[in-house]
Amino acid sequence: VLVDGHAETGLPLDDRGLAYGDGLFETIRFVAGRAPLWTGHMTRLARGCRRLRIEVPSKDQLLAEAQQIAGSERDAVIKIIVTRSSGRGYAGDKDATARCMIMARSLPGIDANAYRHGVRLRWCALRLSMQPALAGLKHLNRLEQVLARGEWRDPRIYDGLLCDQEGEVVSATSANLFIVRRGVLLTPKLDRCGVAGVARATILRRAAYFCRVREARLRVDDVDSADEIFLSNAVRGIVPVRALARRRFRLGPVTRRLGYTLAGLGIGLPPANGS
Amino acid sequence: VLVDGHAETGLPLDDRGLAYGDGLFETIRFVAGRAPLWTGHMTRLARGCRRLRIEVPSKDQLLAEAQQIAGSERDAVIKIIVTRSSGRGYAGDKDATARCMIMARSLPGIDANAYRHGVRLRWCALRLSMQPALAGLKHLNRLEQVLARGEWRDPRIYDGLLCDQEGEVVSATSANLFIVRRGVLLTPKLDRCGVAGVARATILRRAAYFCRVREARLRVDDVDSADEIFLSNAVRGIVPVRALARRRFRLGPVTRRLGYTLAGLGIGLPPANGS
Repeated sequence: VLVDGHAETGLPLDDRGLAYGDGLFETIRFVAGRAPLWTGHMTRLARGCRRLRIEVPSKDQLLAEAQQIAGSERDAVIKIIVTRSSGRGYAGDKDATARCMIMARSLPGIDANAYRHGVRLRWCALRLSMQPALAGLKHLNRLEQVLARGEWRDPRIYDGLLCDQEGEVVSATSANLFIVRRGVLLTPKLDRCGVAGVARATILRRAAYFCRVREARLRVDDVDSADEIFLSNAVRGIVPVRALARRRFRLGPVTRRLGYTLAGLGIGLPPANGS
Repeated sequence: VLVDGHAETGLPLDDRGLAYGDGLFETIRFVAGRAPLWTGHMTRLARGCRRLRIEVPSKDQLLAEAQQIAGSERDAVIKIIVTRSSGRGYAGDKDATARCMIMARSLPGIDANAYRHGVRLRWCALRLSMQPALAGLKHLNRLEQVLARGEWRDPRIYDGLLCDQEGEVVSATSANLFIVRRGVLLTPKLDRCGVAGVARATILRRAAYFCRVREARLRVDDVDSADEIFLSNAVRGIVPVRALARRRFRLGPVTRRLGYTLAGLGIGLPPANGS
C-alpha cells in the first residue's frame, strides 16, 4: 500500500476518512498495466474533491503510483482513497493537503454465466436518503450500502436494487442500473442520491451512437416492465439481469451491444449470443 | 492509541471504518479518572452496534482501556471508534469481530464567557438527509456535518443549526439543541436524522424533575420565538445561546438550572447568575 507515495502498513488513526468518512474513493480496473476508464475515474475524483473542497491530487502522480502497484498483470484492480488528511473537529483545516492511499484489490470472482446469461436481483427494503450536496459522488459514507447489502445472504442473488425515500429507483448496492424500454436506454437521474458511475458515463456516451439515451426518474413499475435490464460497474463491466424478484427478463440487443463494448475494453465478459 | 487493546500507531488500511464509515464512535469526557456519562455512552454504543449488526464490545474492557489512557487528569477526553473490522465489499463478514480503537483527545478550549453569557449561532444552508435506519446513531458517516461546518469561518460563530430536507430543525453540527417555550423544555425528535446525544438523554431525564419535557418536531419559527435556547454535548456540557442569526435570547432559568447540573458532574462550566 502506498500512502502519499510511501509504502505503509497503517493509516494514521486521526485520519478524517476514518473519523468522518471525509473523503472519496475510486476502484479502478487495470488490464495489463493500462486502465481503460482512467480518465473517467480522474474526472469524477476531481469533481468530488472540488465539491468537498479537498485538494485535487495530481493525476500524473496517481497514475504512476497506481501503475507501480498494478504492474503488468492481466487482471488488476486498484483502489484509491483520498481523504482530507488528519485534523480534529468537523471544521477541518482549510489548508490541509489531501492524503492519498493506493492499494491493490483482487478482481471479484464472477461466474462467467453471470455475463453470459444474466443474474438475479432483489429489491432492497432500505430506502436511500436524499442529499443533493453529496449526490453522484463516490464518497466514503457508505453505511446505507452496507445496511442494504446486509438484507440478504442468498449467494444466488447477485445484487439488490434501491429506491430513495420518495420511491424513485436509484441503483443497485454496488452498480448502476440501466433499463431498455421500447428501444430507449434509461438510467436513473443521480441528482439526489446515488453514485455516478464511471462505467455508467461511458455507457451513456457510447450508447448515444446507436439508440436514444435518457437519464430519468424511474419508478419500480418502470423497471418491472422494462424490455431489458443490466447493471454497470467500472470493475465488473456490464452484467445483464435475467431475474428481478419474480420477474424474468431477456438478454436483449442493447445490453448485448454494450456488453461487447465494455468487454472489448477488457472490462467484464461478453454476453451470450442468443438470449 | 490502543487498537483492540494493543498500542498501535496505525490502522490497517483495509479497515471498514475507513472504506465505508462502517462503524460508530463515542467521545467521552473523563474527569480525574471517572467518566460521569459512561453508562449513557455505553448504552448508545451498544444500541448502535445492534442496529448495524456489529458485535457489541465488552464494556469492562473498554472502561479499563479508556481509564488507562485517560489517567487521572482533571480534564481528559477519550474517543472510542468501533468498526466492523476489515473485509472487502459492502456485504462484510457475518462473523467479523468488531475492532475497537481508543485514543486521547484534548478538551476543546472554550471561552468561559461562552458558558457564562452564551454563544452566537447561525442557520446552516445544508439540509440533513433523512434516514430512519441510521437516525440517532453516532456512526462514522459524518460528511454532512463536515459540509455544514464548512459554511462559515467566522470564529465568533460557535456552531450552526441544521434542518432536515423537510425543514424540521434537527440539531447543531456538533451538539443537540434544546429550546424552552412557556416553561416547557423541547428538543427535536431524532427518528429521521441526527445524533441522540448522551448529554441530551441526561438532560431529558434530569429536567423531568422540575419542568415539562417533550421531544417534538420543531420548525425554524419555533426556535426563533423560543424563550431560551441552549446546546448540549457530552464533552462540552450545556452551552447557552444568546444569539441566533439576528435574534437575541436571554439566559433563562431552565438553561441555568441544567447548566449547573452538568457543570456539577464536571462537564462544562456553570452559567452566569444574572442574565
